Parts: sequence; structure tokens; C-alpha cells
Amino acid sequence: MQTTRFVLEQQEIPTHWYNVVADMPNPPSPPLGPDGQPVSPEQMLAIFPGPLLEQEMSGERWIPIPEPVREIYRLWRPSPLIRALRLEQALGTPAKLYYKNEGVSPAGSHKPNTAVPQAFYNHQVGIRRLTTETGAGQWGSSMAFAGQMFGIDVRVFMVKVSYQQKPSRRSMMQAWGAEVFPSPSNLTQAGRDALAKHPDSEGSLGLAISEAVEEAAGRADTNYCLGSVLNHVLLHQTIIGLEAKKQFEKAGDWPDVIFGPCGGGSSFGGIALPFLADKAAGKTPNLRLVAVEPTSCPTLTKGAYAYDYGDASGYTPIMKMYTLGHDFMPPGIHAGGLRYHGDSPLISQLVHEGLMEALAVPQVATFEAGVQFAKAEGIIPAPESCHAIRAAIDEALRCKATGEPKTILFNLTGHGHFDMASYDRYFSGKLEDFDYPAEAIQESLAHLPKV
Amino acid sequence: MQTTRFVLEQQEIPTHWYNVVADMPNPPSPPLGPDGQPVSPEQMLAIFPGPLLEQEMSGERWIPIPEPVREIYRLWRPSPLIRALRLEQALGTPAKLYYKNEGVSPAGSHKPNTAVPQAFYNHQVGIRRLTTETGAGQWGSSMAFAGQMFGIDVRVFMVKVSYQQKPSRRSMMQAWGAEVFPSPSNLTQAGRDALAKHPDSEGSLGLAISEAVEEAAGRADTNYCLGSVLNHVLLHQTIIGLEAKKQFEKAGDWPDVIFGPCGGGSSFGGIALPFLADKAAGKTPNLRLVAVEPTSCPTLTKGAYAYDYGDASGYTPIMKMYTLGHDFMPPGIHAGGLRYHGDSPLISQLVHEGLMEALAVPQVATFEAGVQFAKAEGIIPAPESCHAIRAAIDEALRCKATGEPKTILFNLTGHGHFDMASYDRYFSGKLEDFDYPAEAIQESLAHLPKV
Repeated sequence: MQTTRFVLEQQEIPTHWYNVVADMPNPPSPPLGPDGQPVSPEQMLAIFPGPLLEQEMSGERWIPIPEPVREIYRLWRPSPLIRALRLEQALGTPAKLYYKNEGVSPAGSHKPNTAVPQAFYNHQVGIRRLTTETGAGQWGSSMAFAGQMFGIDVRVFMVKVSYQQKPSRRSMMQAWGAEVFPSPSNLTQAGRDALAKHPDSEGSLGLAISEAVEEAAGRADTNYCLGSVLNHVLLHQTIIGLEAKKQFEKAGDWPDVIFGPCGGGSSFGGIALPFLADKAAGKTPNLRLVAVEPTSCPTLTKGAYAYDYGDASGYTPIMKMYTLGHDFMPPGIHAGGLRYHGDSPLISQLVHEGLMEALAVPQVATFEAGVQFAKAEGIIPAPESCHAIRAAIDEALRCKATGEPKTILFNLTGHGHFDMASYDRYFSGKLEDFDYPAEAIQESLAHLPKV
Repeated sequence: MQTTRFVLEQQEIPTHWYNVVADMPNPPSPPLGPDGQPVSPEQMLAIFPGPLLEQEMSGERWIPIPEPVREIYRLWRPSPLIRALRLEQALGTPAKLYYKNEGVSPAGSHKPNTAVPQAFYNHQVGIRRLTTETGAGQWGSSMAFAGQMFGIDVRVFMVKVSYQQKPSRRSMMQAWGAEVFPSPSNLTQAGRDALAKHPDSEGSLGLAISEAVEEAAGRADTNYCLGSVLNHVLLHQTIIGLEAKKQFEKAGDWPDVIFGPCGGGSSFGGIALPFLADKAAGKTPNLRLVAVEPTSCPTLTKGAYAYDYGDASGYTPIMKMYTLGHDFMPPGIHAGGLRYHGDSPLISQLVHEGLMEALAVPQVATFEAGVQFAKAEGIIPAPESCHAIRAAIDEALRCKATGEPKTILFNLTGHGHFDMASYDRYFSGKLEDFDYPAEAIQESLAHLPKV
């Protein structure tokens, strides 16, 4: 029996996260406040704890993972690296396909990798309550779980249309003791204003962020948590790639190309950045690191590299990143986690400087890839993960044509158990592809803030 | 960092299943046909393949696991044995709690352990098509997955009310290429008869079995699959306990008591029977093996040990087992997998002869236990599994009172991702307990077939 699953002992969970800032050719551009000046740590301390702000700004290559965080990680980590041998056989490719399965976490995705340390550091500085927003519910359920682990109350503002349509994710958050409110709610000024204007509002992620931030800013015992985009979030996610490197050593193999789905950038950064260290150091100059995004929200492939707001309403500091414009409204695709107008500033800069690549794939083809994967490997992937699978299968088929025995790694960021309604739409032929027209992107890019 | 997860290499997947018949004090009572005579293999060959019938009748202690089955098992097996250290701490018990996590399988439960060999042996004898029934969908999705692995078409008759209420499970079966029909359907005489009488029928598991068996019996290229109760099903499930024994050896520990949820008996048998071998041989005389069932369907604790039909309509052979009577209609509890009037003949005999025990627990308390487990260990358990968790927590609390440092093992038979609506009812206080009145049981027991 050939080994196809490469596991590590719990003791082999990495002791440090990797901070790519130490190895970037150029320093990252700082976030700017309304006055055009770099945002000061003091301004951010109203909603983030000191240790996370330090990580956000740090240039240190290795940041120690606190032991209590490793203790929680061991509930599901190290996650397995799996060789998709049956998929290779089904494709008839000489390529070797590997995936890192982040769907084994309590919440079913990679999100707890950062939710847990975020809860830990907030607990450490005496915070009793955390607020956050959630769309489809992956991030909210991860924060609910993480808060429960450290005895912190978690209040989740869930976009109202998801609150109504995804009761399973809501119940999951409640199982971990979180309070879940449909947004817009009556609990905040932002929510009340929205309801006054549109009593039947279905909510939006931007509005839910506003509610969560408002509540955190207004209470000394309460902080706010974000599940992607920021440097410290990507830092925590490097646990994925760091484990994968140890596992490839055990497998006696090494990737030639790595694919990850990319929305806010945290899961792609998580798997790719630790490998980028070697590439930046010239050890693996031909290694390709490819962010895969939807054609309907083509931030890295069709956006501008410019300063823009992180949210839709323009409440946040502005950050230098690839963006489609903060008032760009992507269509309601099923990979909700990839539906973001901007991207991580770190990933954006690395793509801009040519150390990483980006690729856009259409929705229907991603579900087709997901079903092919499920039939071969048994795991039903989240719609976000299907983007990386599509790209990996396409690469494997190119290898079939050329005869190249490449080693391909992709990030299986989560399982699709809560996304079966999306699969149902795919099976019934109701899914559509959507190429965002270039003029619409130009229009929203015209509203970028002036720097 | 203390080790809490005991993993095995893929090469350590057992090479043989364990057949408890070899170690039972008395031979099992044979199933009887309508003529009161033991059913002949020839009669069964219309719907089952020869190799499975051989296993059904075998007295051999060890049955080799075919290599192609082990190759599929490795997609998720060996499953982890986990020490629930955080739950122990939350309970403040001196007991050590371990669980075997069968929720890591593609379908999310222990069911693929037998679905895969059933598909394999049918494939081996040239069967092209398999039929089966499913209620909540765990078994149907496991057969869909297993059929896909060997290129066999799978047709699932899904109880109509579940078909309508559980679209996620339905889509999961479709993702693995199965055809799913609401039962009663127009595809069989049994279905057409039912629809003629009750055009709005919501279906029942008994009727879905009739449809699946009718179709299998009428076509030479088609066989039928059952997910519990029968000897060969329990045989395949012993992979759970066999792995657990290897893992306990690595942990340097050994269970004093084992709890498993018990409906048709396959998951309980799967974890308990390999340990029973040592108990029957006098090596671990004090080991307790406890089947946990719902108070609303108290087969082992309040049923009669007698010959009865396996289905509700009286189409199957009769089997000697604990039964509440084949026309007993348990209330619609959320642990659908435990809602069966009878039980495995092997488990029934071992309980009757005092080698195993049984315990009934009420529904609300099982969800309470499931939530306590989720908050400590991060995994949201299936409602069936919550029964074993309830019993394990109660035992751990007794240990707290007495100071005994017992080692407790329970079977986490599946995750609860498709059961969040049940949790939602629990959170909203809508769940009820249901003790079946003794008179109602007496009434259905009055209809047992005469032998």
C-alpha cells in the first residue's frame, strides 16, 4: 500500500509563524488614515490588542506561537498533506497532485488558524468580549469556536440574508456559545440608520463590519476581529505552509507549483508564503505561487494596484492593494469567501513585484472540478477550494499533454458540507458564469480615494 | 505538549476483520423463512453476492480484508483515537475519556466502513447496479460514495419526507454520482401501490426497503445493500475496534468501559466486538461494553428477545433479536439512525447472554452532552453519537464522585454538520423527551410472528 497521507505528530506543530515581511524585496506600504498619514498604533488599540498590532507591524522573520495556542491547534492540527493518487489516475496525468486538507478543523475551514490566536491575545490583555461580522458563516463560526476556547464572549453580526438562508452555520455558532444577530440590527447606530432607511434591508458584509467595529470601539472590554486581509491574519495562516514543508520532506518530494483560492488572501498566503521564503532566497527560483480568484471578482487579474478602503463604506484606513474599487459590487457567487473588492496588501505587493502570480477561473468550471475531486478523493470541497482544484486539474492536464511530471500542491481550504445548496444549483444547471465588464470595473476604480 | 491524538500509519490499517461468532459461547440462531426453516443461501443470492453471504454465515475468527478495500479505506482510515483532555478538565473528573472519531470519513460517519466492501464484493461478482434505501441520508450517501469508488451505479430510495427536508444529503449523493428517488416512487410495484392508496404519502423506511429489494430481486445485474443489523455489516465495522486496540497500545492505556450508540447495532458492534474477544477469553473480565439507545426506542432495554421481522411490512426473514415488535412506530426523534424496532441478532444474543449491557438515555440530555462536548473538543457530533457521549459523561461524573480513574472509550460515530436543524430545535427549547409507554410496547409485541 503506497502512502498517500503524510501526517505529523502533535509535537511537530510548528513553534513559530513565518513573517514574510522579513524577506520581501521592498518594505510594505503602510495603511493611511483620513489625513493621509500612516495610521498610528494608538488609533488601532481601540479595537485590536497590543500583541496583534505588534505582529501587524513586525519585521521579524519568526514569531513564536504561544503554547496555549498550540494546545488548541492540536485539536485538529497538524492537518494532513494528502497525495491525490486516485485523482491523478482519473486524469491520467504524469503530474503528482498533493493537497493540504484544512477542512478537518472544528469549523471546517482554515479560518480557526487565526481565530484561535486572535482570541488568545485578546484574552491575554483582559478583553472579555469580541465582535465580528460574517457572511456565509465560516469566519463567524471560527471566532465562536475560538472565543469558547478562551472563555471570551463572541458577538457575531451576520449579514441578514445569510442569517435567514444559512441557519446551519448560525446554529453552529450557537453550539459554541456565540450570540448571533442579523445585520442590520438595532444594537448599533450604523444598524439603526440602515434600518431607518431600508426597513427590509438584507444587509451586506460592509454594513456588518460597521456594526461590529462600532460596538468594539464603543466598549473598553470589547475588541474586534477580522478574518483575512491584514498582515497578522496571514502570519497566523503560515502554519499551513510550514506544516506542508515538513510533510513534503517526509514524502521526499517538493512542489513545482502551488495553487490557493484567493479572496482576502489569508488562505493563499498561508500555504504559499513559507515556500516563498525559499524562492526569495534563490533556492527554488522556478517555484510558481498562483493565487486563484473568480472571474466574477477578478481583483488581482483586472484590478488596479492602488490605495483603497478595506470596506465598502470607507470607514477603514486606506491600504495599498489590488482593488476593484471599494464600491465594486461583485455578483452573488457561491464562493462567498472570494467575493471581496480588495486583497491582502502583502499578497498584492508580492504579485505586483512578480514573486507571485494570479489566475481567474469561471464559476461553473470550479464546481465541475469540485465534483471530479469528490468522486476521486471522497471529500466534497467548499466552493472556494474548488477554485484551487480547477487550477490544479488544468495544470495536471497540461502536464498530461507535455509529459512533464510536475509536483502540484493546492490548498483544500474547507469542506463543502454547508454548501450543498450551491452544488444542487450546479447539478440542476442553474449556475452561471459571470465576467465582470471592464467598463464597470473602470467605473468603480474612478472612485478610489485620492492619496 | 501532551499527546491527545493517537494516529496510525496507513500501512497499519488492519488486514483482517474480526468475526465474533468464533468466540461466542453459543452459536447464533439462524434467520428463518416463511416456512419456519432456516433461510437457504440460494434464496439470498437473488439480492446479495456470494462472498457477502459467506461472511454472513461464517464461523472463521479472522476474515481477510481485500487489498482494494484497504486502498479505499486509506482515504480516511486509520481514523484517529483522541483523548478528550479538555472535556475531562471541564468535567473535573479523574477518569480518562477517549473517543474514536469515525466522523472523518467521506460521508461523515462510520457507514462507509461496510459500504466500501459491499460495493467491492458486488463489483467482484459482476454486479453493475446497487439499490438501497436511506432515511436521513447517512447510509445512502455512504453507498453513493462506495459505488463511485468501484464504478457501480447506485440507486437510492430516500424516504420522501427526508428527500424534501434534507436536500443537502441528497446533493451529497448526487455529487458521488448516485440516482436518488423519493420513496414511494413510480419505479416499483410497492411504490405504485403505496401511491395509489396514499398519493400524498411521505414514505417510510420500511417502504423504501421494499422498493429497493423489489428492484434488486427483479434484475440480474442489480443487488441490494443493507447498512446495519446483519452479521457481515458488523464484521466490516470491526475495523473501528481493531484500530482502537492498536491505538490504545500506543497510548499505553486500555479501556475499562466502552460506550457506543446502538440502533441496528453496527457501530456499537464495530467498536465493542474486538474488545469482547479478550473479555470472552477471560483476559479482561471486568471490561464493560455498553450499548446506548434512546428511551424513545428502547429495543435492548425494554424489548423482547424473540424472532421478528427485520422490516415493518414483514417481507424479510425473521431473526432472533431484541425487538419492540415490527409494527412498533417510534416517535420522530432526531437521532434517526437509532430509530429501529429491532437490533443486530449478534448484539442481541451477546446482551441476552450477559457479555454486553444496554442503557437508554433521553433525547434532550443527549443534545446537552453533545453541546458540552463541542464546546470542549471542537467537534459537533451527530445526534446518534450524542447518546454515547451522554453515557460517557455520566460515567465520568460518577468517577468524579467516587474518585475512580477509569478509562472510558466511546464511539464518535459521525459529525453533526447535516443535523444543525436538530441542534437549532434543542437551542430553542423545542425538543422533547419521550418515554414509550409500556402498554404500547406490549401491544406491538403481541404481533410477533409465531415460530
